[in-house]
Amino acid sequence: MKIYFAGSIRGGREDAELYYQIIEYLKSFGEVLTEHVGDKTLSALGDDGPTDRFIHDRDLEWLQAADVLVAEVTTVSMGVGYEIGRAVEAGKPVLCLFRPESGKNLSAMIAGCPEIKLVRYETFEEAQMAISAFIEG
Amino acid sequence: MKIYFAGSIRGGREDAELYYQIIEYLKSFGEVLTEHVGDKTLSALGDDGPTDRFIHDRDLEWLQAADVLVAEVTTVSMGVGYEIGRAVEAGKPVLCLFRPESGKNLSAMIAGCPEIKLVRYETFEEAQMAISAFIEG
Repeated sequence: MKIYFAGSIRGGREDAELYYQIIEYLKSFGEVLTEHVGDKTLSALGDDGPTDRFIHDRDLEWLQAADVLVAEVTTVSMGVGYEIGRAVEAGKPVLCLFRPESGKNLSAMIAGCPEIKLVRYETFEEAQMAISAFIEG
Repeated sequence: MKIYFAGSIRGGREDAELYYQIIEYLKSFGEVLTEHVGDKTLSALGDDGPTDRFIHDRDLEWLQAADVLVAEVTTVSMGVGYEIGRAVEAGKPVLCLFRPESGKNLSAMIAGCPEIKLVRYETFEEAQMAISAFIEG
């Protein structure tokens, strides 16, 4: 099982620690291709590759190789939206995790997409249950 | 010519006046399906439909009917990223307009995507020239 985890980089790194924890948990189900998204030393400058073209092509190759996409969508990110859009259009299973207590507005294009499994959660245990049900269910 | 204009709604409405101006200019080339994105009375609550499912399905139908997608990508928006991702994956021509002087970080997934025509601009006249060149080619 190859898993593409999507989280905000240039949209803001305030959830980087949470991304790290989710990635660690995802590893119990398979290979996480985008482990760098949880790297706490990676800043919102998003310099995780030599050029934007390099980053795009590497990440797209991973997305195309992935069996599923799991995204944490609380921090607003253009790149995460783009990855979800490409995955849905390509017919890949997508799980989106959102924390309503953040007070942020979730996009209607994510919340209203019938092909996306959306789970609203508060605790990390709830996120774990959602991931387990999505992957094993 | 049917044009899908994408701009932030729930990601923030600080560019709503600019979206309105872009939409007015786009109308000189064809039908803009998403004219409500430039409605200055529409807030970041994004209540431009009775339910998220309604909004998603209506906007997706417009996206699928559109000949081209034009997006203003300065205000970070998950929905705009999603729409760009679906359009690129579906093979539709995409123009993204970005204002570097905003100080915002543009996603590498947008800046590095070879299928997207990205134009960085400062003045509205530069945006008009980019749109005209993109559509009339």
